[in-house]
Amino acid sequence: MLSAFCGALRPRLVLPLLLLAALPARAQYVIPADEAVKLARQSMPEYFEFLSLPSDAVNPEDIQRNAAWLEKAFQKRGFSTKQLANEGRPLVYAEYGKPVKGRKTILFYMHFDAQPVTPAEWKTDPWKPVLKARNADGSWAELDAGRLQEAIDPEWRVYARASADDKGPIMMFLAAMDGLRAAGKAPAVNIKLILDSQEEKGSPRLHIVMQENQALLASDGLIVYDGAMPSSNQPGVNFGNRGSIQLDLTVFGASSAPHSGTYGNVIPNPALRLATLLAGMKDADGRVTIPGFYEGVEISAQDREGMAAIAPPAGTLEKRFGVAKLDGLAAAANPVEAVQYPSLDILGLEAARVGPRAANAIPSQAMASLNIRTVPEIAPKAMFEKVRTYVEGHGFHLIEGEAPSAEERARYGLLARLGLVAYPSTSSAARVAMDSPLARWVLSGVKAPRQIEPEKVRMGGSTLPMSGAVDVLKMSYVVVPLVNADNNQHSFDENLRLGNYLEGIRTIGAMLTTRSF
Amino acid sequence: MLSAFCGALRPRLVLPLLLLAALPARAQYVIPADEAVKLARQSMPEYFEFLSLPSDAVNPEDIQRNAAWLEKAFQKRGFSTKQLANEGRPLVYAEYGKPVKGRKTILFYMHFDAQPVTPAEWKTDPWKPVLKARNADGSWAELDAGRLQEAIDPEWRVYARASADDKGPIMMFLAAMDGLRAAGKAPAVNIKLILDSQEEKGSPRLHIVMQENQALLASDGLIVYDGAMPSSNQPGVNFGNRGSIQLDLTVFGASSAPHSGTYGNVIPNPALRLATLLAGMKDADGRVTIPGFYEGVEISAQDREGMAAIAPPAGTLEKRFGVAKLDGLAAAANPVEAVQYPSLDILGLEAARVGPRAANAIPSQAMASLNIRTVPEIAPKAMFEKVRTYVEGHGFHLIEGEAPSAEERARYGLLARLGLVAYPSTSSAARVAMDSPLARWVLSGVKAPRQIEPEKVRMGGSTLPMSGAVDVLKMSYVVVPLVNADNNQHSFDENLRLGNYLEGIRTIGAMLTTRSF
Repeated sequence: MLSAFCGALRPRLVLPLLLLAALPARAQYVIPADEAVKLARQSMPEYFEFLSLPSDAVNPEDIQRNAAWLEKAFQKRGFSTKQLANEGRPLVYAEYGKPVKGRKTILFYMHFDAQPVTPAEWKTDPWKPVLKARNADGSWAELDAGRLQEAIDPEWRVYARASADDKGPIMMFLAAMDGLRAAGKAPAVNIKLILDSQEEKGSPRLHIVMQENQALLASDGLIVYDGAMPSSNQPGVNFGNRGSIQLDLTVFGASSAPHSGTYGNVIPNPALRLATLLAGMKDADGRVTIPGFYEGVEISAQDREGMAAIAPPAGTLEKRFGVAKLDGLAAAANPVEAVQYPSLDILGLEAARVGPRAANAIPSQAMASLNIRTVPEIAPKAMFEKVRTYVEGHGFHLIEGEAPSAEERARYGLLARLGLVAYPSTSSAARVAMDSPLARWVLSGVKAPRQIEPEKVRMGGSTLPMSGAVDVLKMSYVVVPLVNADNNQHSFDENLRLGNYLEGIRTIGAMLTTRSF
Repeated sequence: MLSAFCGALRPRLVLPLLLLAALPARAQYVIPADEAVKLARQSMPEYFEFLSLPSDAVNPEDIQRNAAWLEKAFQKRGFSTKQLANEGRPLVYAEYGKPVKGRKTILFYMHFDAQPVTPAEWKTDPWKPVLKARNADGSWAELDAGRLQEAIDPEWRVYARASADDKGPIMMFLAAMDGLRAAGKAPAVNIKLILDSQEEKGSPRLHIVMQENQALLASDGLIVYDGAMPSSNQPGVNFGNRGSIQLDLTVFGASSAPHSGTYGNVIPNPALRLATLLAGMKDADGRVTIPGFYEGVEISAQDREGMAAIAPPAGTLEKRFGVAKLDGLAAAANPVEAVQYPSLDILGLEAARVGPRAANAIPSQAMASLNIRTVPEIAPKAMFEKVRTYVEGHGFHLIEGEAPSAEERARYGLLARLGLVAYPSTSSAARVAMDSPLARWVLSGVKAPRQIEPEKVRMGGSTLPMSGAVDVLKMSYVVVPLVNADNNQHSFDENLRLGNYLEGIRTIGAMLTTRSF
């Protein structure tokens, strides 16, 4: 496959490097469309080679091979690189040239590990990239990759695991750097990169690696190139994510499970007490009644307008999820606005057994796991304290241990345990104000190539694996998706649309040359 | 062990039988204490033999062997007998002589099957009865069973599986019949017996066997000789039991389980809806709010007084079950009174997973199994209808099938399923008024031997395995326990106190000769 690319293009890469950082920062530079095509052509062999390296983080050797490959690719472009130790699955750190004083430093986050594959589901080998074009009947036919050296049809696609998620953006970044060099344009910001090796596994150690490399990573803002663009394939920017905490709430009843016949009406039922406590947490309009739950959340009229514009048409989610009516919109006009507020959900309930396995006994305890999606206005710990205050306010004595002691049982009529589940279940919300300098810098770069106003997501409802980083690096981040929405990531036949590859190069180039904020 | 009994006593049993039923009914006859000792001596070899037959209903052959033994034992005493087919585990039916017109017919229920045994837990072989006496230090020492022919110490005990539960009462019944014959006393009622073979397994087919033998079993009242006497070992009578229904309530949410981050505040949570529905079923005082739940329940001042007298001292149950405060006593003065009312308990809750297994998703459904303990004033079906009306009154559309159809999903904001679990989970309550003729007949007989006013339980909280029979035979029943409270039934080292054996013979004798009501 790779042999289809003739070696003729490679010599360019070994030309003596001129560090662009040394050049004075000028006005934002948008790589012209025809130049982007050229950069895509040049970078395709490298992209294919990169995609040929399996990178499911389940195999440390694969991660190590990819990390070595990345170090070389960045070094070739004037970056100093370093592997960040991570129990055999190193992350890659890269920094461009020497930092220029008076310029902001931006840390870019991407990841090179990939979702696992089930080869039988794929039309072609997931670790052997192929070029495909759509037939008139909508099916996809394989093309010789050599065709890329003649012309690049933006509707062609490269099929391979990680082609979109997230090696595509890494390659776009490298190609954009080539483009700036070719045009003699210097970046307007100091560039650092952190390339994650376990994103598809939930980045279980990212916060630790960040902790260990805090000084190295210190920057003025974090840009995440990951995720898919809006289905319109028009530019989009995500300015934040809610955080998340899981709380486990156990209500205790009798020390054994008394017979429900002999003791029904006599021994208290912890399942009912739990139900009552949970039911009281929301009013009839779906608003959480825990005091201060929505404290400080204010959404500007302008933001509301923006969200109304991108909200799914009425009925869309209802149909998709098979519900007659959406929930919790008491304070919000639409589902996009709804996730700007913290939410409280019961993830699970458990008390004894149900159905045919139910015993005629009053359960001795009942448990609920709750998930609160937090917003930046209220930190996870503070939110937990609000819930604790609420539960105690309803007369419950909260025990510390696993089970109440005999003394606690004798003393307190209402006994419960409330636990905050540890990281990664707990992560902070992060949100960059859409009129902040960082946000304006991002929006300017993202709009530049096509002069299309990006679709702005004020804050997404769910966390990102790297969102825990905010807790460590205390850094604001903005997510800029670059790949086509129908890329099949996390499924089989993952692919990247070449039009997105071209626009990605241009978007990154424009961002890097946008005057620092 | 059995050889310790000399054969000298056996010949008495083969004397030509004089059917007592042929004699005119006279005044209540109480077997004198010394005569009871003689009857006990005589019957001990048979009792030991009976206890030597394993009777865990898990083995049909054991049940068959016991049934055959019982037929012979009753035939010897002038009963006609019959095995009632029950899938290899026959019940035994026995009827004394010819029914005398103008006398009431009483059906006596006992069971000959036993709890399973774990021999390693027992001090002696559970299927080899031994006689024991208490040492000065409280431990128990084995005595030669031959000692029984010299004297009978009421504090001696016979150790064997089923010695108390429930072969003891069967043997007392046989000995009482011998006592009446020896004294030339005729029973004052027509006697039928049904001896159950699967009581310890919950009598899963008893209602079917009763259905199949309805005419045979037809009687004016049912007496159950099972269960333990009050811990005072004074006589006690139980006039009823609550019934029981299990309801399975499932609340439906989305057709899939949406991500709790992306959709928290957007998609309704069925676990919360279930909690709200359940919480609303009781008020802050623990009173069920379902309209008509307590309809028709009236407890006389006299009954209240009686219950106050036998209620456990304050703090007893609290300590036993490790709770600071009992529940549901809003309308009741004590735990005995509390179970005179219907009760509603959550037996179990289930929605997705909790704790470390919880997923960040809004559950697609949530389920509760409820147990209502019913009273005779409201039949199980009627109670179920009240719950159904309540749930529908809270806006839920109840579906008939397993899951809502797409149409139901689109149409109804609140969807649930409510099912009444079939028999044996459903059984009717039964209660005989304590001043009814049947009750007075029982109380007179139970009081007679020791002239001690029996402890009267108006209605027990739990069902009996045979209580489903009320639905089939439409017969009132009264439970008369005869064995010592500390008999260890359902555990290891089960035993019967010989004093209880003696009093049991006298009690049964007195009941059988009490002028029919």
